[in-house]
Order: sequence, then structure tokens, then C-alpha cells
Amino acid sequence: MDLISSLSLGELALSFSRVPLFPVFDLSYFIVSIIYLKYEPGSVELSRRHPVASWLCAMLHCFGSYILADLLLGEPIIDYFSNSSSILLASGVWYLIFFCPLDLFYKCVCFLPVKLIFVAMKEVVRVRKIAVGIHHAHHYHHGWFIMIATGWVKGSGVALLSNLEQLLRGVWKPETNEILHMSFPTKASLYGAILFTLQQTRWLPVSKASLIFVFTMFMVSCKVFLTATHSHSSPFDVLEGYICP
Amino acid sequence: MDLISSLSLGELALSFSRVPLFPVFDLSYFIVSIIYLKYEPGSVELSRRHPVASWLCAMLHCFGSYILADLLLGEPIIDYFSNSSSILLASGVWYLIFFCPLDLFYKCVCFLPVKLIFVAMKEVVRVRKIAVGIHHAHHYHHGWFIMIATGWVKGSGVALLSNLEQLLRGVWKPETNEILHMSFPTKASLYGAILFTLQQTRWLPVSKASLIFVFTMFMVSCKVFLTATHSHSSPFDVLEGYICP
Amino acid sequence: MDLISSLSLGELALSFSRVPLFPVFDLSYFIVSIIYLKYEPGSVELSRRHPVASWLCAMLHCFGSYILADLLLGEPIIDYFSNSSSILLASGVWYLIFFCPLDLFYKCVCFLPVKLIFVAMKEVVRVRKIAVGIHHAHHYHHGWFIMIATGWVKGSGVALLSNLEQLLRGVWKPETNEILHMSFPTKASLYGAILFTLQQTRWLPVSKASLIFVFTMFMVSCKVFLTATHSHSSPFDVLEGYICP
Repeated sequence: MDLISSLSLGELALSFSRVPLFPVFDLSYFIVSIIYLKYEPGSVELSRRHPVASWLCAMLHCFGSYILADLLLGEPIIDYFSNSSSILLASGVWYLIFFCPLDLFYKCVCFLPVKLIFVAMKEVVRVRKIAVGIHHAHHYHHGWFIMIATGWVKGSGVALLSNLEQLLRGVWKPETNEILHMSFPTKASLYGAILFTLQQTRWLPVSKASLIFVFTMFMVSCKVFLTATHSHSSPFDVLEGYICP
Repeated sequence: MDLISSLSLGELALSFSRVPLFPVFDLSYFIVSIIYLKYEPGSVELSRRHPVASWLCAMLHCFGSYILADLLLGEPIIDYFSNSSSILLASGVWYLIFFCPLDLFYKCVCFLPVKLIFVAMKEVVRVRKIAVGIHHAHHYHHGWFIMIATGWVKGSGVALLSNLEQLLRGVWKPETNEILHMSFPTKASLYGAILFTLQQTRWLPVSKASLIFVFTMFMVSCKVFLTATHSHSSPFDVLEGYICP
Repeated sequence: MDLISSLSLGELALSFSRVPLFPVFDLSYFIVSIIYLKYEPGSVELSRRHPVASWLCAMLHCFGSYILADLLLGEPIIDYFSNSSSILLASGVWYLIFFCPLDLFYKCVCFLPVKLIFVAMKEVVRVRKIAVGIHHAHHYHHGWFIMIATGWVKGSGVALLSNLEQLLRGVWKPETNEILHMSFPTKASLYGAILFTLQQTRWLPVSKASLIFVFTMFMVSCKVFLTATHSHSSPFDVLEGYICP
């Protein structure tokens, strides 16, 4: 009985790791990313007065992780823009969030139960991006540090580019950056990148599908809880307070 | 008779698109670009006190479009610097504009009728760079967005790098950038890049030579008119005011 | 007798140019580089409050030249991080300099006679990096300017990236940068890059081993003298004062 349940858990993880991300999960990723852009002060005026800058910021929010990873790995930094369908989907989301009559689309996707679903689906994409990034780095480059760095930037997305993204909007806050003040997703991406690197180099004796499944569950529950409680704290705070009192 | 005239117009466009740019047109491009550098406040003192920084700024003004396009397409960003003759030509222009006794060279090239000729020739180079950039992007990469982006940065030149160029001179204006406040050449380059991309993907049923010819004529007449009238307005203002009142 | 002495000098230079840099010379390079990081105001608090940012800064100080050269030459900018042993060595040095109990390690390596030895060994690494960089640029790229630029960034290290390195620590000083106010090592690296380029293109009729030997001796004596006298002046000041009074 135990064997069967473990088998089906392994199969569930395997099936889960094979669910295609495009278009539903990617759409959720774009929606949540561009909502966070709209939260930034001044972003609505920016979209009205400088639509090109606003669109570029939205693209950075959606594809910043690919741009940064391509820069690190020496590939064309606009490589991902060859996926025209993803770009069009993200552009459509940007248009609906900023220009929909009566702000209807924004109000719908910001309705908390709906938003929580999108937030959960965004984390599914994030974990998959970390895993794929580390797999790619392992095959084309060598060394632990390159694998961890690639996974980290793939998971953190636009956060590590925040100074550049702000500069594009005419905002400049040099006294802070994401590495000085890491948010929960950035920190979790770093830890996740370390775990997936250990898995890839066979130091962590679990299958990649299981790790994706477990880490996704962890990220989804944390982010949904943090979003539902409007909290900016981090589950790592307790641990960190214990290590560095 | 009509057939003959259309033939000869096509042939004129074809011959025009084959005129070699080096050295005469490139020279005009370098002269006008470095004149704009000299217009910047503090650039003359910079050339006296920090000649290396001034020279690097001049190179950014002349070759910024190649550097940015190489960065986007994942090629070595100093790739163009293997053209030693272009670099030496641009360096000679920089030297003459900043260090010529009695400022003679600068006064000559800034004499309005002479300057208008150089400005016109600079636009010939700009349009050709857009066309070549899109042709290159089409062959080595895929997707509309990459083609448009490559053509755009090839046409806009140093403008899209202006924050970096200012930083090199010790000037920092984070509240503005070229994407927030597009100048006429940047905007025209974007529209031109879209047109050339449509032509390259055969959505615009004209030959590339004709498009180069027509778009060059448009750019030359606009820029010559704007320079002659010392105007900073843009021919697109009317259109934009109509679309976004 | 003269022949024998010249032979042995040539042989000495050849042997010197073949001394392996890893681990002893590299270790000295890392120690001196991270000492300079610790000299920066606020770096100790940074290491306590933001260890990831402090570690990244230390890596930039140790490997900035590789990162910048890889960026210029279109290679993956984290390419050098595949040398896990170098990264671990540099990380160990960072840990000892910032976190050793009683600050013992820092006090030992900053004891002037010890520091002078490390400073001397750092210059050996710097000159070798210039020579290797120009050799690499010569084989894979073309043009004098690319060779000089590669050698220069390989020699100058983190200095040319100082604005980025400061931004990572939350410090922003846009009114100055290393190109506006070149320090002695940056200037010497530029001159060294020119000399090695002349040697590589056979305009300077000496062997590479001899040039490495002579230029290393020059750099070592200058830097040891400047460090011993706590001087920030430069041996080039006299020459420059004569050329540009």
C-alpha cells in the first residue's frame, strides 16, 4: 500500500513537472508581474505620457530573468524576444492592465481570490525557470557557481535588475538595491538554485521532478500566505534571526 | 514613357543603395556626431583635462549604435573597433574639432551651409545602418521584435546610451533618458525600423533599395529643415497630437 | 662573458614568465584586492549586515578584470567563475579578512613588510594578465584597438567597474569615475597594454618574456615604493606635467 502511494506521488511529481507552462501559467506570470509594475508610484502616468517606456518596463518585469541570464551566459540579451507569441501575450496583458476601460481588467485580477490563484501559478513558473536554468547552465558551462548564479537570476526575475528598471522610468535610488535588501522571492530563488544545483550534481539524492514538486509547494504556500496577509516579512526571518542574532 | 521613368527611378534607387559609405559619408557622420558632443556643456574642458574620457565619449557618439547592437545580439561589444581605419578617421575628427588651432575646423564645419550638407549625409548613413542592421538580425536571429530592436538601436546611435555617455563625463541626470523623451531621430529610427522590418518580411511590397531611397529623402529633408530652422520640434508632433489629444 | 650573462638574463626572463600563478601569486592578488575593499568606508558594516553584497563586491575586486574583458569580447561574463578553486580561494580570503577573530588575519597581512611582499606579487599577476589578455585578443579578434582595450581592462581590474561596484554597496558618486581620474595602476596598465600590443604585432623587437620581466620590475618597484611611502602620486606625473603644462 505504501509502495503504491509512493509510486503515485512520484508519478504525480513527474506529471506535474511536465505540465506545459505556455500559455496558461505564463499568462499568470505576466499578469502578476505587470500588476507589481502598476503598484509602483507614477507608473500609470508613465503609461499615459511615455507608453514606449512603460511597455519596455513591462517587458523587463516579464522577461528580466531571461535578459539577465543571457547576459551572464554570453548569449544575445534579446534572445527570448524571438518568442513572438510570448511577447504578444505579455503586451496584451500590459495593455489590458493599463488601458482597459473602467480599469475593469485590473480590478478583476486584483480581486484577492483571483489574485491568489495567479500568484500560485506564478510560483510554478518561477520554480520551473530555476530548474531549467540550472539544467542549461550544467550542459553548456561548468562549475557550481555558474549553475547557482544562472538559477538565481532565472528565479529572481526583474528584482536583480531593479535599478536599471527604475532608471528607465526616470527614478533613481542608488542607496538600495535587491542584493542589499533581498525580498523573499529573491532569497528563496537563491536557496532554490542551491538545492537544484545539488540535485543536478547528484549530491541531493532525489529526482528532479520530486524537487520541483516539493519546492513549488513550498513557494506556493509561502507566497499565497504572504499575499493573503499583505505581509512583507519572510519565512526565513526566524532562521536568520537564530543564525545572526 | 512612364515605364522608362519608373525604371530609371528604380535604377536610381538601386545605385543610391550601393554608394559606398566609407570614407566620405562616414566622415560626415563622425563630424556631425562629434559636433553634438562639443555642444554639450563642459565638453571642451573635459577634452583638455581628461582627454581619454573625451576620446571615449567621441567614440561612443560615433559607434554607440554598433556597441549597443552588438550587446543586444550577443556579439563582442568592441567588435566594430577592429575597423581600425574608421576608428582612426573618427579619432582624427575628434582631434580636429577639439584641438585645431583657432578652432578653425569647428568653425568651418559649423558654418550653416556646410553643416547642412554634413547633416544630410549623416542621415544617409543612419538609414543605411537601419537597413543593414535589420538584414543582419533577420539572417542570424528570428522574430520581429529582434529585427525592430536591432534596426532601432542601429539608427538611434548614442542617444539610447545617453545616460552611460553622461556618466563617463561625470554628469548624471537619472530623471530623464532618451526613451522617456525621444528626440526626432530616435522616433524616426523606430518607425524606420518598423518599415524596414515589414519590407524584410515581405509585408511591405516594395524593394529594399526603393525604401532606402524614400526613407533617406524623408530623413534628409526633415533633419535639414530642423537644423536650418534651429528647431527642436518634430514632424510627428502633429500626428501624435491627433492620436493622443 | 657578456654573451653568457645576456643568455642567462633571457633565460631568467623566460623562466619568470613560466612561473605558475596559481595558487601563491593569485592568493596575494586576492589578499591585496580585498584589503582595498576593506579600506572603503562602510565595508565592514556591509559585511555584517549584507554578507551576500559584500561577497559579490569581493568577487568584483578579485575578478572584475575577467568580467569586463568577457563583456567586451562577447564571452559569458561569469565564465571565470567556472574556476571553482579560484573562487573558493578568494572567498576564503574574503572570510578571513572580514570575519577572522580579533581581526588577526587583516592585521597580519596589513603589517607593512608583509603587505609589500603581497603588493609586489599582485603586480606580477597584473602584468601577466595584460600579456595573456592581449595574446588572447590577438588570436580571436583583430585590430589594435581591441588588443589594447583587452589588455587595459585585464590590467586595471575592478577600477574601471568602480561605479558599478559602488552601486552594489549602495554608494553612488556619478561625478567621478576611473576614466576621469585614473589611478597609477590604471594608467600603467594602459601604457603596458600599448607596449604588449606593439610587442605582439612585432613593432617592438623584444621577446614577450623579456617585456613581461622588465614591465613587472617597473610595476613592482613603483607600487612597492608608493605603498611604502603611502603616496597617491604617480611616477607619470612628471612626464605629464612636462607634456601638458
